[in-house]
Amino acid sequence: MAKEITTREENYSQWYSDIIKKAGLADHSAVRGCMVIKPTGYAIWENMKAQLDKMFKETGHVNAYFPLFIPKSFLSKEADHVEGFAKECAVVTHHRLMNNPNGSGVVVDPTAKLEEELIVRPTSETIIWNTYRDWIQSYRDLPLLINQWANVVRWEMRTRPFLRTAEFLWQEGHTAHATKEEALEESQMIHELYARFAEDYMAMPVIKGAKTANERFAGAVETYTIEALMQDKKALQAGTSHFLGQNFAKAFEVKYLTKENKEEFVWASSWGVSTRLVGGLVMTHSDDQGLVLPPKLAPTQVVIVPIPKPLPELLEAADKIAAELKDKGISVKIDKDETKRPGFKFAEYEMKGIPVRIGIGPRDLAKNEVEVARRDTKEKSSASLDGLGGYIQNLLDEIQNNLFNKAKQFRADHTTSVDDYGTFKEVLENKGGFISAHWDGTSETEKAIKEDTTATIRCIPNDQEREDGVCVKTGKPSKGRVIFAKAY
Amino acid sequence: MAKEITTREENYSQWYSDIIKKAGLADHSAVRGCMVIKPTGYAIWENMKAQLDKMFKETGHVNAYFPLFIPKSFLSKEADHVEGFAKECAVVTHHRLMNNPNGSGVVVDPTAKLEEELIVRPTSETIIWNTYRDWIQSYRDLPLLINQWANVVRWEMRTRPFLRTAEFLWQEGHTAHATKEEALEESQMIHELYARFAEDYMAMPVIKGAKTANERFAGAVETYTIEALMQDKKALQAGTSHFLGQNFAKAFEVKYLTKENKEEFVWASSWGVSTRLVGGLVMTHSDDQGLVLPPKLAPTQVVIVPIPKPLPELLEAADKIAAELKDKGISVKIDKDETKRPGFKFAEYEMKGIPVRIGIGPRDLAKNEVEVARRDTKEKSSASLDGLGGYIQNLLDEIQNNLFNKAKQFRADHTTSVDDYGTFKEVLENKGGFISAHWDGTSETEKAIKEDTTATIRCIPNDQEREDGVCVKTGKPSKGRVIFAKAY
Repeated sequence: MAKEITTREENYSQWYSDIIKKAGLADHSAVRGCMVIKPTGYAIWENMKAQLDKMFKETGHVNAYFPLFIPKSFLSKEADHVEGFAKECAVVTHHRLMNNPNGSGVVVDPTAKLEEELIVRPTSETIIWNTYRDWIQSYRDLPLLINQWANVVRWEMRTRPFLRTAEFLWQEGHTAHATKEEALEESQMIHELYARFAEDYMAMPVIKGAKTANERFAGAVETYTIEALMQDKKALQAGTSHFLGQNFAKAFEVKYLTKENKEEFVWASSWGVSTRLVGGLVMTHSDDQGLVLPPKLAPTQVVIVPIPKPLPELLEAADKIAAELKDKGISVKIDKDETKRPGFKFAEYEMKGIPVRIGIGPRDLAKNEVEVARRDTKEKSSASLDGLGGYIQNLLDEIQNNLFNKAKQFRADHTTSVDDYGTFKEVLENKGGFISAHWDGTSETEKAIKEDTTATIRCIPNDQEREDGVCVKTGKPSKGRVIFAKAY
Repeated sequence: MAKEITTREENYSQWYSDIIKKAGLADHSAVRGCMVIKPTGYAIWENMKAQLDKMFKETGHVNAYFPLFIPKSFLSKEADHVEGFAKECAVVTHHRLMNNPNGSGVVVDPTAKLEEELIVRPTSETIIWNTYRDWIQSYRDLPLLINQWANVVRWEMRTRPFLRTAEFLWQEGHTAHATKEEALEESQMIHELYARFAEDYMAMPVIKGAKTANERFAGAVETYTIEALMQDKKALQAGTSHFLGQNFAKAFEVKYLTKENKEEFVWASSWGVSTRLVGGLVMTHSDDQGLVLPPKLAPTQVVIVPIPKPLPELLEAADKIAAELKDKGISVKIDKDETKRPGFKFAEYEMKGIPVRIGIGPRDLAKNEVEVARRDTKEKSSASLDGLGGYIQNLLDEIQNNLFNKAKQFRADHTTSVDDYGTFKEVLENKGGFISAHWDGTSETEKAIKEDTTATIRCIPNDQEREDGVCVKTGKPSKGRVIFAKAY
């Protein structure tokens, strides 16, 4: 199996596609730009969802569900929003099919044209704020802390499984507040929550920061982002949280009565992460043997393989081990397949990224031992059956930490401080990764650099140090460095 | 609050709408036929989802996700399916908007017409079986036991929150098998699982049975249904499971190699339940004071109300009780609102259907007691603080059982055996409910009865007794009774 994967060096993009396919994460579909998320890929997303949902609820949010369709006119109500989202989208124009009069198949019934076209939601600010108008009357109705798990559609020209697809799954939080401070705090709190999720669960280090005006969400006053570095040294925007000011409240006339009985527009935040995270997870940790998954998100954490085959006494031992592991909350699978050899199975489980493999043979058993192989380093060791549950639990923690540290080291190795434009271009072309450089703060310069190099400002980092310098492109004064990179 | 609900006797339909609105379950949206599911309504659906998902996984199923869109031509591939589903649906014809040349808003870009229209899925058999063709080669790939949680759209003319909406949320299982027996068994196993879920979790008794040919799913060989009785004596189809034979395998050319190396078409089942269940839950148990929820699906099972107001010593006691209840897995809320009186709060929690209310006042506390009120019977009693957790746990079980028994009694009271057509019509008009009657087994008779009375055959019950009789409508011979009712 493993040899069928293209190496990263050979062709990074093909390597990614090979892993998506061979590890059974996703498949192409008959619909342009839409993928089928296969059971293993979906199980990873389910684990992400479960953890995020828990974190949202712990911070006071509740889930709700708003319509898939948005009346076309809604998109025009917020001036910036329409520019960003009303372009490439799926438009529903009719509500009925009929038998083709010529007898073959079905055709659109021309008499069933909608009075107003409906857009398949690319994001839900408009339909949600149109609803909030009815839900919010007074300060007593605030804050409104709502999240939605949903599918959205953006008619992308170039798509890649998980990273960019026409339809994708995501969560979108939409909160309403009485004051600017509260809405801003909410957007920042979620920004931190996303970073914690990325680092603690995905083992994917991220830079936290604010987007420049050019890169902001359409309709936002401020966009906070977490930016991760993939193994091809390109950045991945992994989650954004927006402070929307009163833009949507004004567009949809959502006002509330203050305690002092004054009418004010409501303040807003919105934030989302999507199935794109599955792509980021794959690209952060995997290697030329296949998928590598951090234990906290792996659908199966441990596989037990009887060697040379599933003999009754080996299965009996496997059952005992499995019970002990399950007891500790570890997900485990026993391989009972009699038709394949251990070597084949090992390659298969490496490909699928199962964090720990336990091999049990008669000789191991006689010594009261098993063989334990970890996916991240491919190291093997013997472990005693006594206390094996605790041993495996520690090992899973160690793998989780190791993956994070490795990714962090990779990022450190590919983050470069640069002070002149020549070096900037040279580093960007040859080394890649994040570039920390001074910028004069104007959109014009940012656009010029993008046109010239395709690099964008990923963020103005939250931990930006105040440092006098000059813009790498224009030589104009700058007060601190920002993060540039080529990005997905 | 409570007095604002229309009574069931006065206007059942308005009563339902009032509860949906006042208990905060759903709201109308700006999109025709689409509802907004509000946090409380969504939390009930989440509880249903969690339990069903667990039951699906325990029976070997995995989740996956298939595209929202279906190429129009796919719908024509299965002859019966196209008749059933290719009619009222949302049709995507364009993929871009542009600024209106006249300067106001956005319009559909006529140059962005799709080559082939896409249908927003009304159900996913076609896109899934088109995918299964690539996934299934040999008997080793079978069975394929896949479920999907998704939104679907059917352009319904008359809609009601939860019971019938243009967009709804559901799960759809799509399984593939090597033999007819296996596929048939799967569809029957899920049918039993749905019945168990309805009765054990929703406390909603159901009749299990098979649909007649007229009422079968478009493309199915056999449709199994669970049918519940609402308080207005109309039936609600609550969940269906279909044995699809080889119909979709043939339409999409899905074949597999048997162990004997012969090529055969694959056998299929599909099955689904939807947010309609939330409507069924409301209609089964609620009363003129508001929502009544079975404890197993109630988002909040217990509310603690300090009386007359949230004094520090009462809150301290409330915290202790809440901790004890949470420890037993009971979800609990403490009402800390200082602005409303207890009477108002009581009516509010009755409206919202919280199964148990605990009142704590200084005098109760002095006696080491609290006041416990149950929502189902509205009985109040005193309970000792010692062992309160266990007491409440038992009470929740009792409420769950009581709701089921009450609904079962209601159904028994409204199920009538009828032997002649005069009585049939009389019972249908005046008493309503399920009618158990002989039928000659023909579609013509079934249609004639429907035209005449609007009643349909809900199912041929699984526990049908062999009994010689004559059809109530035609007098022709019959071998057993079927269940008729007016239905949602």
